[in-house]
Amino acid sequence: MSVRPVFIVAGIGNGTGTGASAARLFAKSGYRVAIIARNADHVKNLAQEITTAGFEAAPFPVADYSYKSVLGVFDAVRAHQWPTPERAEVRVALWNAGSGVFKTFLNVTEEDLASALESNVTAPFAFSRQAVLAFRENSIDSLGRRGTLLFTGATASWRGNVFTSAFAAGKFALRALTQSLNKEFGKENIHVAHTIIDGGILTDRSAERREGAARDEYKTNEDIRLNPDSIAQSYLYLTNQDRSAWTWELDLRPAHEKW
Amino acid sequence: MSVRPVFIVAGIGNGTGTGASAARLFAKSGYRVAIIARNADHVKNLAQEITTAGFEAAPFPVADYSYKSVLGVFDAVRAHQWPTPERAEVRVALWNAGSGVFKTFLNVTEEDLASALESNVTAPFAFSRQAVLAFRENSIDSLGRRGTLLFTGATASWRGNVFTSAFAAGKFALRALTQSLNKEFGKENIHVAHTIIDGGILTDRSAERREGAARDEYKTNEDIRLNPDSIAQSYLYLTNQDRSAWTWELDLRPAHEKW
Amino acid sequence: MSVRPVFIVAGIGNGTGTGASAARLFAKSGYRVAIIARNADHVKNLAQEITTAGFEAAPFPVADYSYKSVLGVFDAVRAHQWPTPERAEVRVALWNAGSGVFKTFLNVTEEDLASALESNVTAPFAFSRQAVLAFRENSIDSLGRRGTLLFTGATASWRGNVFTSAFAAGKFALRALTQSLNKEFGKENIHVAHTIIDGGILTDRSAERREGAARDEYKTNEDIRLNPDSIAQSYLYLTNQDRSAWTWELDLRPAHEKW
Amino acid sequence: MSVRPVFIVAGIGNGTGTGASAARLFAKSGYRVAIIARNADHVKNLAQEITTAGFEAAPFPVADYSYKSVLGVFDAVRAHQWPTPERAEVRVALWNAGSGVFKTFLNVTEEDLASALESNVTAPFAFSRQAVLAFRENSIDSLGRRGTLLFTGATASWRGNVFTSAFAAGKFALRALTQSLNKEFGKENIHVAHTIIDGGILTDRSAERREGAARDEYKTNEDIRLNPDSIAQSYLYLTNQDRSAWTWELDLRPAHEKW
Repeated sequence: MSVRPVFIVAGIGNGTGTGASAARLFAKSGYRVAIIARNADHVKNLAQEITTAGFEAAPFPVADYSYKSVLGVFDAVRAHQWPTPERAEVRVALWNAGSGVFKTFLNVTEEDLASALESNVTAPFAFSRQAVLAFRENSIDSLGRRGTLLFTGATASWRGNVFTSAFAAGKFALRALTQSLNKEFGKENIHVAHTIIDGGILTDRSAERREGAARDEYKTNEDIRLNPDSIAQSYLYLTNQDRSAWTWELDLRPAHEKW
Repeated sequence: MSVRPVFIVAGIGNGTGTGASAARLFAKSGYRVAIIARNADHVKNLAQEITTAGFEAAPFPVADYSYKSVLGVFDAVRAHQWPTPERAEVRVALWNAGSGVFKTFLNVTEEDLASALESNVTAPFAFSRQAVLAFRENSIDSLGRRGTLLFTGATASWRGNVFTSAFAAGKFALRALTQSLNKEFGKENIHVAHTIIDGGILTDRSAERREGAARDEYKTNEDIRLNPDSIAQSYLYLTNQDRSAWTWELDLRPAHEKW
Repeated sequence: MSVRPVFIVAGIGNGTGTGASAARLFAKSGYRVAIIARNADHVKNLAQEITTAGFEAAPFPVADYSYKSVLGVFDAVRAHQWPTPERAEVRVALWNAGSGVFKTFLNVTEEDLASALESNVTAPFAFSRQAVLAFRENSIDSLGRRGTLLFTGATASWRGNVFTSAFAAGKFALRALTQSLNKEFGKENIHVAHTIIDGGILTDRSAERREGAARDEYKTNEDIRLNPDSIAQSYLYLTNQDRSAWTWELDLRPAHEKW
Repeated sequence: MSVRPVFIVAGIGNGTGTGASAARLFAKSGYRVAIIARNADHVKNLAQEITTAGFEAAPFPVADYSYKSVLGVFDAVRAHQWPTPERAEVRVALWNAGSGVFKTFLNVTEEDLASALESNVTAPFAFSRQAVLAFRENSIDSLGRRGTLLFTGATASWRGNVFTSAFAAGKFALRALTQSLNKEFGKENIHVAHTIIDGGILTDRSAERREGAARDEYKTNEDIRLNPDSIAQSYLYLTNQDRSAWTWELDLRPAHEKW
């Protein structure tokens, strides 16, 4: 019986950012796409869009990013009956959730911190556990992979700063997790990769935060912010690295970014 | 009215490690010492020991390292009536708590992770908030300081590994916090420093985990593990750096450590 | 008049490693390949091999990696008359030379150090200068590039160690150069990327250093050493990143590498 | 026969910066001071000043920082007959030379680069060799030390940037050297430490580059630039760390530095 791989993405914003771009690209590349996020409408809309385009996608809205919810929704993905007959194998999982507040330190509340830690640390621990357990059931394919676990990091993954104390705490922790996982599971041919998105990403929301000419510039000038489709291309590249040359960490920034 | 500075330490193990050494050294160096930890007996014993030696110390046992408990215990320290008449000023605060489990990834439970995040991230956020607020009430002293905020890190602060996924997540996050704080509050002459203790520390417990000759060697050979008194000396040094040359991060390891 | 891009590679060993793999891959991908190395026979053989396979390549042996020699050989590449009529544009340049001795510190001679610095620092400075000057003559293409400058790093690029004092000095310096270049020339749409090859690379020579079963294992087990063809794929990927999401640094290691 | 330790410093500018401050401080702390630098007048003046103050110092002008010259001048220090009768032991050596040009990349000449590499890499290799050989003749003292080898780094030690391609190449290389040395010679109780001076240092020259009010501010405001005496205090602290808790790397910056 033939097999079709599943790509799971957690975190798709309103469908205009990195997670959504990755969902579309992996769908076109032959993956069934399982879409996890907290906004049920956005999840459904994106799944619908991909299905309408002739590919396979299924929505998995989740109430929150608690440890238990993430375990549960991953189980739901694994139990899902896809309309096409091939056996489903979870082969790639992307944790793309994990926003943070941008506040000076004394304005960060206990809730802000808890939220940053839940979506950037606790949930990824649960997600990674499920992904590793799923990947272990896979055979090693021709490129030497049992599965690929991808994570979206940020400037705050390698630099704490005035407005990012809570966000950076979460993103540093996530980076640590990915390094531990890479070191432990590489030996089982499970590839764990972390990306540092070191600049602004073009989305509906990031564009709306600008006004007038600055917004137009932000939307059209590819030199000054990241195109989520380009980030998605990097995720596909990381996924397709063969076993002899795997990357743990990749930084991405626009050509004109000052850093 | 004259002033006596207060040194607050959170985390003293059973009184044989870094936190206790720091308490003793800062007491001898003229500080009143406020001791925070979860084991009430250990807290009382250490405060008693320091008082008996002729210095000032007071015990502040805390039920847990929740955000609220830490806020509360810090308030209690600030409200404390010291037996001597000088006005108390919190001038140095050391977060030395924050242990972690050592387990391979799939053995890390939700509780293990929550515990690592609470003691290494959430509690230090609360502790830092209170310290910054306390320091802001201080004048700038002759060395250019309003206050010094110290943190104990570990090898897991800069390296994730097979047995440290949860611990490293917590310690990376803590490191991020200290960098954010340093960048934000240096401008207010509040010094924030992070240490990376990159080797085993001699304590009752770490010695007991070894047996026979190895234990004796561990206890007596200063080349192969850290002496908590030496770490304490580093904390005093960091505290006494003048404003023109402050350190954010210091690594410490035994002379013969392989790294 | 139409244009054909030139790929320049410096450093090809005996034709079985990373530089040679990159030469072959970029040739197949539509580039004319200019091959620079110190061993004239190896340069000629590789150019011949690529030409025989139906692609374009030309040999540029160089006496040494002195600053002047590197400037000169790059000029020679730019002045070269390719047999096909399209105008030549240097679009990608890879510095893949830069070996180092593996000796404990006191055994490193002045000559060892000078050699490590010349091939890892001085020569890349000259090479980069010429590449930047060449790229500046190019238009910005559809992916937002004037040119791509690639560098091969090693474990010694981010870790000094007992046997690598001279090599790590060279490789750290090279890494610094690439970061400076990335920050300065990104604004001109020149992409500078550094790779950290964090493991053994399969070549004739690295295989020969092993014996018997270990050699066979090394040759055939893709989990334990890097395949130079896989590294070359990464170079092509970096080259083809569009302007909105460029990578400065990429690490590569085999799936089973301990790190 | 009793012993007096020798402190060797290489690089003292015009006698108003870090090297000179260290010379004065180590002299006051009981060390004989051997002063190496290229400007013979500055060397003599500083030695004279220290001697006049009642301490021991001797001038060792050196023609250049070539590998051979550095080996030679270190030999001269070791052969020096100090006026007091105690046996001399080289116990601490500080490499404080190593300036760099600040130019955009295309303005960096071959000579600029050669100069940066000589003073930041080649000379420190020679200096370290001699220091290690000298330290090996020492007994291990009560703090567990055979000797301490100190290095002055800069912002360019951990960040390459537009104006620092040559300087950062040198400083990254130097940092690599210190890590390799620390890992190799810690086992022999030789302590190797690297400092990152991450801000402007107050010297005659750095003050003169400013004008009017900015110069006065720079001279008097301890929050905005490093005081070389404070850096020297850090060097003394590093030297006096005991064997159980040695630091490899220390960063230093003014309280108000933006980083």
